[in-house]
Amino acid sequence: MKQRILVVGGLAAGPSAASKAKRVNPNTEVLLFEQGEHISYGICEIPYYIGNDVKDASKLVSYTPQKLQQVKGVEVKTLHRVEEIKPVRKRIVVRDMDKDSVSEHQYSRLILATGASPRRLGISGEGGWNVFHVKSLDDGYGIKKFIDEEKPKKALIIGGGYIGMEMCEALKNNGIATTLLHRGPLPMAGLELETRKAVLSELTRNGIEFVANTQTKTMRTDTTNRVVEVGTNKGSFQTDLVILSLGVQPNVGFCSSAKIRLGSYGGIVTDQRQATSVDGIYAAGDCCEVKNLVNNKWMYIPLATTASKQGWVAGENAAGGRAVFKGVIRAIAVKVFDLEVAHVGISSDEAKKSGFDAVTEQITGDSKVSFFPGNTKVTITLIGDKKSGRVLGANVYGGAGSVLRANTLAVAIQHKLTVDDVFRLDLIYSPPFAPLWDPILIAANQLAKRF
Amino acid sequence: MKQRILVVGGLAAGPSAASKAKRVNPNTEVLLFEQGEHISYGICEIPYYIGNDVKDASKLVSYTPQKLQQVKGVEVKTLHRVEEIKPVRKRIVVRDMDKDSVSEHQYSRLILATGASPRRLGISGEGGWNVFHVKSLDDGYGIKKFIDEEKPKKALIIGGGYIGMEMCEALKNNGIATTLLHRGPLPMAGLELETRKAVLSELTRNGIEFVANTQTKTMRTDTTNRVVEVGTNKGSFQTDLVILSLGVQPNVGFCSSAKIRLGSYGGIVTDQRQATSVDGIYAAGDCCEVKNLVNNKWMYIPLATTASKQGWVAGENAAGGRAVFKGVIRAIAVKVFDLEVAHVGISSDEAKKSGFDAVTEQITGDSKVSFFPGNTKVTITLIGDKKSGRVLGANVYGGAGSVLRANTLAVAIQHKLTVDDVFRLDLIYSPPFAPLWDPILIAANQLAKRF
Repeated sequence: MKQRILVVGGLAAGPSAASKAKRVNPNTEVLLFEQGEHISYGICEIPYYIGNDVKDASKLVSYTPQKLQQVKGVEVKTLHRVEEIKPVRKRIVVRDMDKDSVSEHQYSRLILATGASPRRLGISGEGGWNVFHVKSLDDGYGIKKFIDEEKPKKALIIGGGYIGMEMCEALKNNGIATTLLHRGPLPMAGLELETRKAVLSELTRNGIEFVANTQTKTMRTDTTNRVVEVGTNKGSFQTDLVILSLGVQPNVGFCSSAKIRLGSYGGIVTDQRQATSVDGIYAAGDCCEVKNLVNNKWMYIPLATTASKQGWVAGENAAGGRAVFKGVIRAIAVKVFDLEVAHVGISSDEAKKSGFDAVTEQITGDSKVSFFPGNTKVTITLIGDKKSGRVLGANVYGGAGSVLRANTLAVAIQHKLTVDDVFRLDLIYSPPFAPLWDPILIAANQLAKRF
Repeated sequence: MKQRILVVGGLAAGPSAASKAKRVNPNTEVLLFEQGEHISYGICEIPYYIGNDVKDASKLVSYTPQKLQQVKGVEVKTLHRVEEIKPVRKRIVVRDMDKDSVSEHQYSRLILATGASPRRLGISGEGGWNVFHVKSLDDGYGIKKFIDEEKPKKALIIGGGYIGMEMCEALKNNGIATTLLHRGPLPMAGLELETRKAVLSELTRNGIEFVANTQTKTMRTDTTNRVVEVGTNKGSFQTDLVILSLGVQPNVGFCSSAKIRLGSYGGIVTDQRQATSVDGIYAAGDCCEVKNLVNNKWMYIPLATTASKQGWVAGENAAGGRAVFKGVIRAIAVKVFDLEVAHVGISSDEAKKSGFDAVTEQITGDSKVSFFPGNTKVTITLIGDKKSGRVLGANVYGGAGSVLRANTLAVAIQHKLTVDDVFRLDLIYSPPFAPLWDPILIAANQLAKRF
């Protein structure tokens, strides 16, 4: 039989894996199943499409099924949902959702790139037709259409993480009065306290109403199944539109029957070659856990960058290669209106829980020479380990140039540089771009004093 | 006798050294001599002052002599030129230029921070009153005053390095038709070929006339000693204003009589503690050579960042501490009109000369997600060593975000990461800030294919 690689999931890791497998071994038949209608699109761009920064919806899609077939030689079946894996016989059971028929497909190697699903509240009313997640292209189209046609005046966003932040701006851009209901005291759990305060301040400055420590209890719908009021421990909120941004969980529905090992966060656990615990089955992307290189712990950090890279590795190895994916440090950024916010490495809380002797220092410096036109402030929180001297993580927020500075710290964190190493970095000084003492150097110098 | 540290030179390294020495050992008497009128000002900001980006001249000065005394406890003597060192007797000979008197000063430790002088053409006419260097605050004031009062229509810049680039924009901002005479075929020697072509193209696009392979032979002055015509191997150029930007050379005039060891580039050679070959004498800043950490060679790379850091180290050690300065990688950036240009590490030429098996790859990527508003192109030339796999250097040019990306590569270069390490960096992806595959990762991936 000809070598046959089946790929389950068409968002980020799947097309990446399928294309790579075909490139590594052009004689292999590569077939990709996706339960939705679209493949290979940018989830992260959807808030900017809703917020009218990106006007051309077709730009959101990198590859149509036809294009992936033509350019990469990957056969694509959309509206096909994989319902079961039979690892002993190396078969999967696939439902053609159009025809509502079920068929079995033989594989030599199977790559799971099933992604993640948005978390739900689990309350009635959640299925109202003005309630949206932000997790698929169809969600994006749906929200956009709803705004254009229904012209909502008031919206509730439930969940103050990254997507919640981006949706605040997107809705504000559409002139919608927006209230953010968040379960914690400050937005953006996982960031350092001062960063979260700065984010809240930027939200407030831009007219977003932030309601802290809120549990959503009820959703009251009208006769058309439209949610008109959301009840919480902090009172009731009338609304025209509800956005749920509660995070995601890995899609691993058919893993247990196939005896594929899961980790403590519920994601698939793989080795460095992206092989699962079951012979011939690889996994990549948001359905997987990933090793954090900073504390060497497996975590659930669903990110498109990781998905693409793991996809490459899974695809190459499924096709007979020997690639490895070593792990991540978690490098994340979000634009909160005019504030750039980035997080790299582990947080001070994670550092303490991981057994490090964590010390934290925060400084504010200039992005350019202080009196150069366009200079903005950059605030860096640096987290170090007193014992080893290592830099473990950083938050960077402020004006233009904050996020790209986090990337510079990311290299230091990934390669286990010490605070002294960071202080000794030879960085650029040029009035339009950076001051004599870059904020990175100031942060390292100040943190070193705490050691 | 009370411990007494004398510092020679008041620009960057000197005040840094003096302040640090006083901080480390407050009981020490610290006395700084500067032959000019001003101390502690930003040379790098002067083109932006001339170009009207920085309007308030007082911002150029970080510390006046009075402020350095009050804030840092350093006694400052301006208009005092050190003329001789008597290392056996631990004395220096100082001329008070105001009173034109000479005196001797005893030291416990001496720190030389004598800086650098602009290179000259060595032709007659060079002293014309419309001919300027860009190497001191007085140069800056002089050029600004000349432009305001004489309203020159045409200018010649001789020398197409960093200062030459910045002065092109500064003069253009003043509405002056500007011609750049350069001795090489392309501006910015030391950068990679394609970067230099991009720089030339940006100059031309902004109306700068670039004359390549030009040797300046003569300067014809009028009766008021004003240069009106410059003669070269490429013909004669009439002009109202001449800017000389020919680079600098270390000020080491009194070193040879004091038997202070110089290096092959003519700068003072120190150890990692910034101690010279003569007992009790330290040196820091543009008068020194510096070790390039990429190829482990001593080079002459005068930069303000290096000067400040070496100043700290010299000051701390002169006061009894044990600090070290390990070296630089050379991290430089320049704004050429709308083009960001950066260089980090060693060039492909230097790599070959240093015995590396140098391979170079160039790619152009997106600064943000390609269809995000404000996206610009970023071009990276990555220089690697085929044998060790190491990244040795990089040029980055393009729109906003190019220079700060060079800093990320700077960390990789300074810490001897391989091309594979760079490809595996966990960098930020977020539509407003960086694409899924940052240009840095694309460059590493492409260069790896050449290995």
